[in-house]
Amino acid sequence: MRDLDKERGFAAAEGVLTTDPATIRDDPAIGVVAEVMGGIEPARTHVLEIFAAGKPVVTANKQLVAQHGAELFAAAADAGVQLRFEASVCAAIPVIKVLREALVVSHVHRVLGIVNGTTNFILTEMEGGATFAEALAEAQRLGYAEADPTDDVSGADAAAKMAILATVAFGSRVTLADVDYRGVEDVTPMHVAAARELEMAVRLVGAATLVDERLDVRVRPAFVDRRHPLAAVDGAFNAVMLQGDAIREITLEGPGAGGIETASAVVADMVSVIGTSANGFLQNDACWRELEQLPAGALRSPFYVHLEVDDRPGVLADVARRLAAHEVSVARLIQVPGDGGGAVLHIVVHEAAQSAVEGALAEIVQLPDVHARPFLVPVVSDRGVAELGWA
Amino acid sequence: MRDLDKERGFAAAEGVLTTDPATIRDDPAIGVVAEVMGGIEPARTHVLEIFAAGKPVVTANKQLVAQHGAELFAAAADAGVQLRFEASVCAAIPVIKVLREALVVSHVHRVLGIVNGTTNFILTEMEGGATFAEALAEAQRLGYAEADPTDDVSGADAAAKMAILATVAFGSRVTLADVDYRGVEDVTPMHVAAARELEMAVRLVGAATLVDERLDVRVRPAFVDRRHPLAAVDGAFNAVMLQGDAIREITLEGPGAGGIETASAVVADMVSVIGTSANGFLQNDACWRELEQLPAGALRSPFYVHLEVDDRPGVLADVARRLAAHEVSVARLIQVPGDGGGAVLHIVVHEAAQSAVEGALAEIVQLPDVHARPFLVPVVSDRGVAELGWA
Repeated sequence: MRDLDKERGFAAAEGVLTTDPATIRDDPAIGVVAEVMGGIEPARTHVLEIFAAGKPVVTANKQLVAQHGAELFAAAADAGVQLRFEASVCAAIPVIKVLREALVVSHVHRVLGIVNGTTNFILTEMEGGATFAEALAEAQRLGYAEADPTDDVSGADAAAKMAILATVAFGSRVTLADVDYRGVEDVTPMHVAAARELEMAVRLVGAATLVDERLDVRVRPAFVDRRHPLAAVDGAFNAVMLQGDAIREITLEGPGAGGIETASAVVADMVSVIGTSANGFLQNDACWRELEQLPAGALRSPFYVHLEVDDRPGVLADVARRLAAHEVSVARLIQVPGDGGGAVLHIVVHEAAQSAVEGALAEIVQLPDVHARPFLVPVVSDRGVAELGWA
Repeated sequence: MRDLDKERGFAAAEGVLTTDPATIRDDPAIGVVAEVMGGIEPARTHVLEIFAAGKPVVTANKQLVAQHGAELFAAAADAGVQLRFEASVCAAIPVIKVLREALVVSHVHRVLGIVNGTTNFILTEMEGGATFAEALAEAQRLGYAEADPTDDVSGADAAAKMAILATVAFGSRVTLADVDYRGVEDVTPMHVAAARELEMAVRLVGAATLVDERLDVRVRPAFVDRRHPLAAVDGAFNAVMLQGDAIREITLEGPGAGGIETASAVVADMVSVIGTSANGFLQNDACWRELEQLPAGALRSPFYVHLEVDDRPGVLADVARRLAAHEVSVARLIQVPGDGGGAVLHIVVHEAAQSAVEGALAEIVQLPDVHARPFLVPVVSDRGVAELGWA
């Protein structure tokens, strides 16, 4: 590392930190090395030396793999050790592992992706009415964009990722120089409005395509049909869609950046390196734990309740009072005329224990104005995990 | 296999087919065995005998893993061989590999999934106006549902898959008997209409949740917010969302059933078994190919073109004529007043080579009525692969 004295938020054991890569390379106790320096040099030289010393390498270095992948693969193969690089593309979204292992027998002929979170955030903000400059400033304020956002905005970052994905998907050699890319600088609010008018969304899309065994890898702003899965990728999220013969299409979506997400991919690769020896210990769950069942009804969720009632004054108040008595709070309520002359209540309640909602309903069905069995289902709400309840 | 003489669409080599599992178990030339018989017995006995003989097993047998997983894991560990079962859940969607390998260091605390394509198809059809009976009949006609659809409709199939996913995600023992499930039999067109009114969709959702180290695994019809990724899963597709600390959430989507998709997962598991020995050959691309670049402009796609023109008779005809001369066909055209008094044309053209569209535009910008540089981007259309063009 560059600076032994930097504050790291954890206490390293004596002698673990070093500024000299040779001490790592030459330590027989070290079985696998993670390279997270970034940049081409000296990272490239260090990695080649580690391979030469017979150690496998895990890297998060996108530019290194996109520009010097062929050299690294050859050096790893010569040394008989592994090179893994999941974290170099889309952080914790395991698209490299899926392409190299799960789809190893599928003929993948197209990879479509939203692989740059900064530009996707900017385009999503522009859909909400911001100009490009305002959206970029907001991305910088939230830490999604660097002070110098050129690599993201120009499409160069996405292009490096598409080069790596094409290399892995097609089993070929595709470098950054092979990718024809354009960024989002020319996208204006007028284009965003035009897309909306056509029921589409503007997205920066990377596409790697095999046509008659010939290759086309590019990054472009594109108009994406609202019904297409890539149009639903909002904010700083990434998504990669893999199309092939046997698999039709498989889409992977998730956070494509972030320190902890990237670290998770680096460590998983290190575990995979260690686990893919002898009998592949990862495949047998020798270590597992007994977990207790949550009591029935204890899980919390928002719920939808369907009630059929007589259309008489006071019914609504009676229903609401029973819900409140069980501390169940109404988020939305729609009353419409029922088929049989009564009324139908559509009720969405805020997160509550299922047993509380069921308790309230048990009382509500006793009310003289309520007929038919209520219909109760959980609600899966938007993606804020904290708000999700059970689902 | 049960019947040596069945027509299989391929010619097996002499002596390869057998009805006697012992000949497979005892053949020292066989290094890994795939079990695709289905059912609990005799599949369970055969698998245990193969482990005892020291061979790894790959299985597509959902009920076997969901009901006897603990026994199989123990037998594999005792024998020091691998058990892989990707194809037992969601066919070619590699959720087992992702959970066991890519997310091995993440604390996954919730798995949300649409894991039964038949019921998802039925619910999607009901959104289109069909009754449950009509939707089921259509699913049967298309081969998505069995003649006896009980396992799908009741939620039992989804429950078995959620038991396997919870086992792997939480590193625990969860069997089919631990899953509280309900199916889609009670969902009526009225519920589907109510969901629509609330900007939600009805989906059969499996949820495995860890709350304070306690477990809750269930399958329920749920109302899913239209903005939630699970609401976008249409027809017979499956999706699984994994939520954890470092990864936030990762969603995998794809076809969750089908013979060729399942076979792809079985063969990938077999390759993984073989590849996870010695130096893990899967990780180095010793075998790769040279691919030619497609000529610039040759890739075909639908496109969006933005033009600013004088609002004079004949302009539209001139533009259309230039497009037609390059065999570029207009799919949609919207003309609106421009800011500066002229008109703005939003044009979506059918799939064409980019060079053809660029050729037409080069002529169009020469027209006296056309001002400003045209804006040209590809269009990503709905998911029919054949219609997608480049994207």
